[in-house]
Amino acid sequence: MQTNQKLALLRAEMAKEGIDAYIVSNTDPHHNEYVADRWQCRAWLSGMKGSAGTVVVTAEWAGLWTDSRYYEAAEAALQESEIELIRMSDIGVDPIDVWLKSNLSAEQTIGFNGAETDLKQARSWIKSLKQALLKTRSDIDLIDLIWQDRPEAPKGTLFLVEDSYAGKTIQQKITEVREQMKTTGAEAYLLGRTDESCWLLNFRGTDIDSSPTPYCYTLITPDSVIFYIDPEKLTPTSTQKFKAAGITIKKYSSIVQDLQELDASIRILIAPNYISYKLTQALKHCLQIESRPIVTDLKAIKNETEVTHLKQAMIIDGAALVKFYTWLYSRLNNGEPVSELSASHKLEACRAEFDSFRHISFESIMGYGPNGALNHYAVDESTDQPLSSENIFLIDSGGNYLQGTTDTTRTIPLGETTQQQKEDYTAVLHSMLDLLTLEFAEGSTGAQLDGVCRLALWKYGKNFKHGTGHGVGFGLEVHEGPQGISGMTTEKMKLGMITTIEPGCYRTGQHGIRIENMVHTTISHETEFGRFFKFENLTFCPINTDLIDKSILPQHHIDWLNQYHTEVFRKLSPLLTAEEQTWLKHECRPIENAV
Amino acid sequence: MQTNQKLALLRAEMAKEGIDAYIVSNTDPHHNEYVADRWQCRAWLSGMKGSAGTVVVTAEWAGLWTDSRYYEAAEAALQESEIELIRMSDIGVDPIDVWLKSNLSAEQTIGFNGAETDLKQARSWIKSLKQALLKTRSDIDLIDLIWQDRPEAPKGTLFLVEDSYAGKTIQQKITEVREQMKTTGAEAYLLGRTDESCWLLNFRGTDIDSSPTPYCYTLITPDSVIFYIDPEKLTPTSTQKFKAAGITIKKYSSIVQDLQELDASIRILIAPNYISYKLTQALKHCLQIESRPIVTDLKAIKNETEVTHLKQAMIIDGAALVKFYTWLYSRLNNGEPVSELSASHKLEACRAEFDSFRHISFESIMGYGPNGALNHYAVDESTDQPLSSENIFLIDSGGNYLQGTTDTTRTIPLGETTQQQKEDYTAVLHSMLDLLTLEFAEGSTGAQLDGVCRLALWKYGKNFKHGTGHGVGFGLEVHEGPQGISGMTTEKMKLGMITTIEPGCYRTGQHGIRIENMVHTTISHETEFGRFFKFENLTFCPINTDLIDKSILPQHHIDWLNQYHTEVFRKLSPLLTAEEQTWLKHECRPIENAV
Repeated sequence: MQTNQKLALLRAEMAKEGIDAYIVSNTDPHHNEYVADRWQCRAWLSGMKGSAGTVVVTAEWAGLWTDSRYYEAAEAALQESEIELIRMSDIGVDPIDVWLKSNLSAEQTIGFNGAETDLKQARSWIKSLKQALLKTRSDIDLIDLIWQDRPEAPKGTLFLVEDSYAGKTIQQKITEVREQMKTTGAEAYLLGRTDESCWLLNFRGTDIDSSPTPYCYTLITPDSVIFYIDPEKLTPTSTQKFKAAGITIKKYSSIVQDLQELDASIRILIAPNYISYKLTQALKHCLQIESRPIVTDLKAIKNETEVTHLKQAMIIDGAALVKFYTWLYSRLNNGEPVSELSASHKLEACRAEFDSFRHISFESIMGYGPNGALNHYAVDESTDQPLSSENIFLIDSGGNYLQGTTDTTRTIPLGETTQQQKEDYTAVLHSMLDLLTLEFAEGSTGAQLDGVCRLALWKYGKNFKHGTGHGVGFGLEVHEGPQGISGMTTEKMKLGMITTIEPGCYRTGQHGIRIENMVHTTISHETEFGRFFKFENLTFCPINTDLIDKSILPQHHIDWLNQYHTEVFRKLSPLLTAEEQTWLKHECRPIENAV
Repeated sequence: MQTNQKLALLRAEMAKEGIDAYIVSNTDPHHNEYVADRWQCRAWLSGMKGSAGTVVVTAEWAGLWTDSRYYEAAEAALQESEIELIRMSDIGVDPIDVWLKSNLSAEQTIGFNGAETDLKQARSWIKSLKQALLKTRSDIDLIDLIWQDRPEAPKGTLFLVEDSYAGKTIQQKITEVREQMKTTGAEAYLLGRTDESCWLLNFRGTDIDSSPTPYCYTLITPDSVIFYIDPEKLTPTSTQKFKAAGITIKKYSSIVQDLQELDASIRILIAPNYISYKLTQALKHCLQIESRPIVTDLKAIKNETEVTHLKQAMIIDGAALVKFYTWLYSRLNNGEPVSELSASHKLEACRAEFDSFRHISFESIMGYGPNGALNHYAVDESTDQPLSSENIFLIDSGGNYLQGTTDTTRTIPLGETTQQQKEDYTAVLHSMLDLLTLEFAEGSTGAQLDGVCRLALWKYGKNFKHGTGHGVGFGLEVHEGPQGISGMTTEKMKLGMITTIEPGCYRTGQHGIRIENMVHTTISHETEFGRFFKFENLTFCPINTDLIDKSILPQHHIDWLNQYHTEVFRKLSPLLTAEEQTWLKHECRPIENAV
C-alpha cells in the first residue's frame, strides 16, 4: 500500500473518533533505542526508516519531523507521498507541539497512542497543547486499525548470563536494588526499560536486532519480585533459575491489571521516560515517585568480573577487526571488488568466527569517502558504494559477546591520501589521545571532559557536531546511560564506568574521520585536593599511522601509540593466522620520530 | 531575645495552627540573591547569617541545614541555642524533605510561608512530602507573628538609567519582550525577579545593600505594561518618564489582586523559581506557561553601548584598585597597622572617589593567609585579622558604577613567599589565561569551557571546588544568568555575554589563591566547521608577577602578561597620582624570560 492510501485510511479512522490531528512515532512501550518491527509505526506509514522521526497527520495535511541526520533519507522516502518534510534541526522551525498550537484551533483534539508514548513525552505534549486550549486523547491506536499485516510482538527465547560472567547473583542485585529503594522511600519499583530487567535478573533476550533485551517488565517490592514476560520466551532452565531466586513469573500483558490492583497506599518508583503513559494511568491511584531507574546507576558501575570479561571481549573483537582488515586489503590489492555492504557482511562474519559472539551491537557504519561524512550513515542497497583507492574509509562497528559489548571506530586509507585528510586525521587522533590519557579530578562531568577533548580540534578551527562519547552496557545496549561525554552531559564520570571516546572531523562531500576507543574509569592518584581519575584503555585494534602528520602530533602521543601497538600485537596475534599476523605486524610498526 | 526564647514563641504559634514542623528560610518574594533585612527570617531566628541556610522546627527539635561554606559560622552562631547544625554537604546527610519524611508521621502537617517561597521550591517540598502522606500549609507567616521589631520593607528611591547608558529605550525593550512573548504563545508575562523590571524599564533601586534592584513587579501584555512599585520610591522625573513610555504605575501590593482578577482565558508566562508560591495561587484560574524569564536571555546579551560603558567602568575600577594597593603597600612598608576590615573600608573609599560609583557590587572578600582559603569568606569584627608580611592576601571585590558592574580578584604577596605559594599561584594563572585566550566553537557550553580551564591545575594534582565563572549584569546583579562556567552549566556561551573567569587554589589553614578577570564573548573567525568565538579581556588591573614561577608558565602566557601590563599602565595611569603611577609602573614591569 502506498503512503497516501495509508493516510486516507488513517484520516477515515480519525474522523470516526473525532481526532483532528494524530501523532505517529516509532516508539515501543519501553522507550527502547532499538524497536521491534511491530512498533515501527512511523516507518510503516511514511516509508522513512531511521531512528528519529515523527509524523503528524491532520485532515488536510501531513508532515514528518526529523533531524538533519535524516534529511536526505526522509526526502527520498517521502518523494511519492503527500507528507511534507519538516527539518527540525533548522533554525526557527517549530517543534510539533508549537506547530499544532499554531495550526489548530481551541477545542480541537490531538490523538496519540499512550501505550507507546512515554510519560515524559506525553505529559509535555498535553501540557503544551493545553496552553492553546487543545484537547488530547491517548487511549487509541489508530495505526493498529489500519495496519493489516502488522507484525506480532517478537517471541525470542531468552538465555541466562552465568554468575561467573555477571559477577553478581540475582539475589545480590535484588538486595542492592532494595537498599536503594529504601533511600528513596519507594515501596515498589517498576523496571520499565527492558535492559533494567536484563541486568537485575541476569538474562538476555533475542527479540530485537542489535539489542539483547526482550520485551518484559519487573516489579520489585521489599518482599516480592514479579517478572512479566511471555512464557514462550522461557526455557525450563531459565524458569527454574528464576523460581529458585524466588521470582514470580507472570504474563507480559498482565502488568496493566497488576498495577491497577496495586494497593493505593503503596509508593511506587517509576522513571518518566521509560514508562508508557498508559501504564502510569493504571497507577493513577498510587503515589508515584518519579526518579531515574535505580538500576541505571547500579549497572553503570561495572564490577571486576564484568571488566575482566570485557577485556577479553575487546581482544576477540580486535582480532575480528584485524581479520576483516587483512581480508579487505588483500581483496583490494588483488583488484577484487568490495563495496560498503559486502564489507559490512564480511565484518559480521569475522566476528561470528568466535564462539562467544552473539550479534553485532549495532548496524555497522561503513562510510567510504563522502559517505563517511554522514553521521549515522547506515549502508543499504540504495546507498552502497564500491570501495576504491581514491578515498579514506570510516568503519564504526561493534559486537555483543558473552564477555561484553564492544564499539570501535577506525578510519583507514585505501590508497593515496591528501594533506588535508592527514591534518584532519591527526587532529582527531590528537583529540582522542588527549582525553584518553587525561588525569582529571573526581567529580568531573562529561561536559568538562568533552571540552578537553575538543581543544586539539578547535586549535585548527575544526570541530564535530556529535557527542564525544557514550556509556556502554555489559553485554547490554551499546548506548547506555547515565554518563556520556558531550557539552550537555552534567553526569559525573565515576569509577568503574565504561565509556567511548570518539571525536571526529567531517567534510561534507569529501570524507569523514572518526577514531574511537573504549575506556574504563580508574583511580590515578590522590592529592590534598582530592582523588584524580584516569582512563584505562580497553580497545586493542591498530590505529592507522600512515594517515598521521607527525609534524603536528605531540611526541608523547607518538610514544603512546608505539607502546599501544606493541601491546595490540602481543594481545591479538595469538588469535590470528600467519597472514593476519603479517598484516598486523606491519600496522603495528613503530612510528619513526619526526625529524 | 535569645534563639531558644524565639523557638518557644514559634512553637506556641505552631501549636495554635496545628503545624507539626515549620520551615524558616531567608528568602524574599522574588527569590533575589541579596535580601533586605525584613526577609532575613532564618538569620533572625537562628543568629546564623550567610547566604545559605534553612531552619526546621518541630515541637521537640530544631535543626539548621547549611552547606560546608558556612559550617564554622553556623557552629559559632548556634552555640547558645538548641538548634542542631545539619551539615548538608556531607555524604549521606538527608535533605530537609527526606528528614521530614523520616521523622514525621503520615497526616502530620508541615508549614512554610508561601509568600516567601518560590514556586519551584514549594512544589518540590509539597510533592516530596506527599509521598509520605504528609500535609503542607503555605498560607501562614508564623515568624511575622513573633518578630516584634521586624524591619519594614525598604523604601529606597529608584533612579533612571539614561538611554545613552542603557543603549536601548524602554520602548525598544518592551517591543523585544513582546516579540519573544509571541513565540512562546504567552499573552501576559509577569516579571518576577526584580532585575527583570530594572532592565526592562531602565531604572535601578536602592532598597538592598550590594544590589541595585528594588522590590517591584512588572506585568506586560501585548497592549499594556503595569509597573508595581511603592509610590514612595518614585521621583517626579521617574514617574514622568514611565508615564511617557505608556507604563501604568500601581502599588506593589496590588499585584495579588490584579493577578486574581486576570481574565481566565489569558496564558501567562511565569518563571517557577522567581515567583512566590502565593502569587501562583493567585493565578490558579489562568493557564500558566512556565519558562525561564524572557528578560534573562535578552539582558545577558549586552549591547554595544553597554559594552563600551563597561569598558570605562573597568578602567575606573582598575584605577581604584591601584589606589588601594598603593595605599596598602605604603602603610605596610611604613609599619602602620592594616587589617582585613580596615583594608575593606579603604577599598570602598577608593572606589567612592569616582563620581560614577554607586555602591560595591558585593561584600568584598579580603582573605589574608588561611582566611583566603575560606570560600565566601566575609570579613567582620569577629574574624578580622591584621595583615603582616608572613602570608599572601586574596582580594575579591567589585563596584557598581553608572557605567556597569565590575568583579575582580587578585592575590598578592605581602612579604616573603614560599615555593608552594608560587606553584599554586602559577598554576591558577596558567589556568585563567588558558581560558581567557581560548578560541572555541560556537555552541560550546560553560561546562566544556570549565574543563579546559581546569586542565592546567589537574596537571599538578590541584583543583578548586567552586565554579570557574559567572555572568555579570550591566549595572545590575554581579551574579547574573543564564550563562556560567562550571561542570554543571549546559548553557551555551553566546556573543555579547559578559562573564568572569576565576579559577583558584585553596589550602585549608594555609592560604587561598584566586585570579579573576571579566571577559566579553566576541567572534574570533569562521571556518567550514562553523564560527569560533574568543574572549575579549575587560579587566585592567595588574596581575602580580612576583608570585609567578616562570619555569612552569608557558612563554605565550608570559608574552600575554607583558602586553597586558603595558596596556594596564597606559589605560590606568591617567587616573592616578604620581605616587600611584610609580607603584603601578613597577607592578607592570616586563617579566624577564626564564633562563
